[in-house]
Amino acid sequence: MRNIIIASTSTIHGSGYLEYLLDHLETYFKDAKNILFIPYARPGGISHNAYTRTVETAFAKINKTVTGLHTFENPTEAIKQAEAIFVGGGNTFVLINQLYKNNLIGVLKAAINSGTPYLGTSAGSNICGLTIKNTNDMPIIYPPSFNALGLVPFNINPHYLDPITGSTHMGETRETRIKEFHNFNTNPVVGLREGSWLEVSGDEIILKGTLPARVFEYNKTPYEVDSETSLNNLK
Amino acid sequence: MRNIIIASTSTIHGSGYLEYLLDHLETYFKDAKNILFIPYARPGGISHNAYTRTVETAFAKINKTVTGLHTFENPTEAIKQAEAIFVGGGNTFVLINQLYKNNLIGVLKAAINSGTPYLGTSAGSNICGLTIKNTNDMPIIYPPSFNALGLVPFNINPHYLDPITGSTHMGETRETRIKEFHNFNTNPVVGLREGSWLEVSGDEIILKGTLPARVFEYNKTPYEVDSETSLNNLK
Repeated sequence: MRNIIIASTSTIHGSGYLEYLLDHLETYFKDAKNILFIPYARPGGISHNAYTRTVETAFAKINKTVTGLHTFENPTEAIKQAEAIFVGGGNTFVLINQLYKNNLIGVLKAAINSGTPYLGTSAGSNICGLTIKNTNDMPIIYPPSFNALGLVPFNINPHYLDPITGSTHMGETRETRIKEFHNFNTNPVVGLREGSWLEVSGDEIILKGTLPARVFEYNKTPYEVDSETSLNNLK
Repeated sequence: MRNIIIASTSTIHGSGYLEYLLDHLETYFKDAKNILFIPYARPGGISHNAYTRTVETAFAKINKTVTGLHTFENPTEAIKQAEAIFVGGGNTFVLINQLYKNNLIGVLKAAINSGTPYLGTSAGSNICGLTIKNTNDMPIIYPPSFNALGLVPFNINPHYLDPITGSTHMGETRETRIKEFHNFNTNPVVGLREGSWLEVSGDEIILKGTLPARVFEYNKTPYEVDSETSLNNLK
């Protein structure tokens, strides 16, 4: 059975890396001693090693060891053998480009669909959707495709931000950007606020965390869904 | 001689469309009766016709007529014949995709380099750089390439935003995003704040408007440049 956590962010304001999720992850990853970490998204351009050390420190608090995918000579085998997989945030274009370059899209999707527990945060959540077309990241690398893992039948907009009242900045709001998306694409988009995540168990998709999420469907007015709502019928 | 305006935004807060630039545009476009408008970026998914009407209304104030590129059967010929060209904002991926699709990149570059006065705002400024890799837009369409017109030897980040003091949002700041860019690319990036523009006359590139711009060079600490500074040596 599939077990997937699709989290808006790794870190909520005023709290440590993954801290808000750790209690939950202790149960979620109970059958895994070691987490395979995919550090490809490199937030702020951090090295794969340095990024893996951050993740090691966080998971040590719940007695898990962490191994970076970049340390394996054969990353395909590493994914096939993994007890659990975590893909952290950073730049979604860099992440998906590296997954394509190393020919890992298929094997990652197969491992997750056959039951390897998966945690994604931010960029690691973007790739769970059909495409990465709702990332907030800067397109600093041209990837071979925007197609992603398609673990859920919609797209993810992590770090979802409501329009800022009284802002004088003329750049597009997040809602306008997603509206533009629906001029060219018909699949739904789930805007996940920081502190929210989707939990996929088999075919069941439930919104978790304390906040509502904002759902954007093609040709519909965007709407809010509360925590614990099922998104099974969203497609 | 080349004449290019690369503006951060079409509209500054509390003012009408293009209003802050109109006096200047009256002189700048003095030899053109008609402006060829390229509406491809479609802000908010607006139609080409509706977008062109907005631009018509603005330019009517300085007695210019406007024709939308989408109304020509042969857009290549229309660009070659244009007295002046304006490319407005919206989504940069949609804009560049349509330019590639209609095979217009080369002809547009040639027209501008041979002296057709050009105005770009926002997405229309992004395409003046080497690549669109510093756009803030959502990648809602997968274009054939991120390579742009290369009218200046660096990239543009329009609507440049300083880090927001006291923000609790954990998404990357603009500066972090550009820092990530420099892990994979070496060309400079000019962060243009709203109300600023670059004016290119021949090989001379001058920052205009009241605000300083922020320059990001590879392996250097980002720095501010004041209005009226020449950026001729930035490459």
